[in-house]
Order: sequence, then structure tokens, then C-alpha cells
Amino acid sequence: MRRFALVIAFMAGLNAQAFSQKAEIEAVNAKWMEFFNKGDFAAIGSLYTEDATALPPGSAMVKGKAAIEAMWKSMAEQVTDPKVTALDVKSLGPSAAREIGTFSLKTKGPTPQEVSGKYVVVWEKVGNDWKLATDIWNDGK
Amino acid sequence: MRRFALVIAFMAGLNAQAFSQKAEIEAVNAKWMEFFNKGDFAAIGSLYTEDATALPPGSAMVKGKAAIEAMWKSMAEQVTDPKVTALDVKSLGPSAAREIGTFSLKTKGPTPQEVSGKYVVVWEKVGNDWKLATDIWNDGK
Repeated sequence: MRRFALVIAFMAGLNAQAFSQKAEIEAVNAKWMEFFNKGDFAAIGSLYTEDATALPPGSAMVKGKAAIEAMWKSMAEQVTDPKVTALDVKSLGPSAAREIGTFSLKTKGPTPQEVSGKYVVVWEKVGNDWKLATDIWNDGK
Repeated sequence: MRRFALVIAFMAGLNAQAFSQKAEIEAVNAKWMEFFNKGDFAAIGSLYTEDATALPPGSAMVKGKAAIEAMWKSMAEQVTDPKVTALDVKSLGPSAAREIGTFSLKTKGPTPQEVSGKYVVVWEKVGNDWKLATDIWNDGK
């Protein structure tokens, strides 16, 4: 009976951890969108790990938070109003998680178009903060 | 002195774990290519976790090993000779890892073209086997 109670407590703990990770990651996503819309790319860079990798469609991998900051700054010349939605956050342990989500954004210019797609982010906990460690996306959702 | 030796032993253990994970994952990648070239899509499906997600460019997410098996079978009507190269495997713990790599394949038809790109796979250890749990790719490398 005691063992059963322990198993239930352990499973509840795992669920609470996964729930908390998703909520914490969604909070970072909200900051990401806020910083992008403000044009604060240094703040966006600070959401990534030092050695993070971004894998944008149609171009080379982008390695390190400084290069990722420059990538988003450059992209913001062409697109605006990104929205990301976390569909599934899977805990990979106390300090790693995998997020699958969808995004949309609008192209700039005389005839703006909505672009949408899907993404995977591997998150790593650095100190108390969840940071994007691997960030890849493509079109279609 | 003893503590120092323990730290060294612990770090060596971490490195050995990461090395072993990369070698084990490369072995699964080799099987993946072999099965694709043989047209054995049930065997390809068996390399994925039951609830794996694939995120192919230009179309919707594909959920579950059965649907992923069907996706690769359908893709094999249009492309052949896939080659994947693991560039970086990062351990996320004893039972999870993140792989970044590049791929190339050839289109079928009268004028075959080489297509190349990059990918991220989140691996999970199920029993003694590393399985693809999340598989996303895009063009450009």
C-alpha cells in the first residue's frame, strides 16, 4: 500500500514537472515574440544557449547566440508579427525538453502575406532559465 | 586528491556516454539508409518510437510509427539513395539525445537531381535501442 502511494506520488511528480516545463517554456516563447516585435534582438539572443544552433530553411545552420541574434535581426527586415504556439512539450529530464509547435508570421512589403509552418525546439535549463538550444522549422502545418 | 580523481572519472564517464551515444545513433542511421534502399518500410518504422512525430517540409506533421512508415514509403516513389551524416550528437541524459546532421538524396525520373538539407532528430532510448522520437528537416546546408 505504501509502495502504491509512492508510485502515485512519483507519477504525479512527473506530470507536474512536464506541466511546469510547458508553462515555463510558453512564458519564454511569449518573451521571444515580445522582443521580436520590439526589435530587441540582443534580448532574443539572450533566450538561446551560448552554443545554440538554429537551422533556418533554405540557408546554412547558424551557430552560437551572437550569430542567431544577427539572423533574427536580418529576418526582421522581411517579416513581422511572429506567433508561435507550443503544441507539445515533452520532458526529457529535469534540464531538457523537446517542444513541437506551429508558427505564423507576415511578410513585409506592399502586399503582405501570411506564412505558416511548424518547428521543433530542444530546450535546456541553464541555471533557473529555460533556453533554446536547437531551433529548426519548415513550412506546412 | 581522491576527489580530483573522482571528478576526472566522472567527466570521462560523461564523454564516454556521449561517444557511445553517437556511435549507437550512427549505427541506427546506417540501418535506416539500408532499409530505405531495400524498400523495407516496416523496418524503417521500427526505428521510430510508437508516438514519434515526423515534420516534413511542405506538409503536415506525421504522428506515430505507422503513419511515418507510410510517409517514407510514399516518399520513396519520388526519391532514392538517401544519405544522412550526423554532425553533432548531444547527450540529454542516459535515455535522450539530440542529433544535428545533413542529408542528401536523389530525385527519381528522367533527370535526377540531388537534393540536400539538414535535420534535427531527438532520440529516445527504449529498452536497449535508440529510436527516433522527433524527426524534422529542411533544405539548405
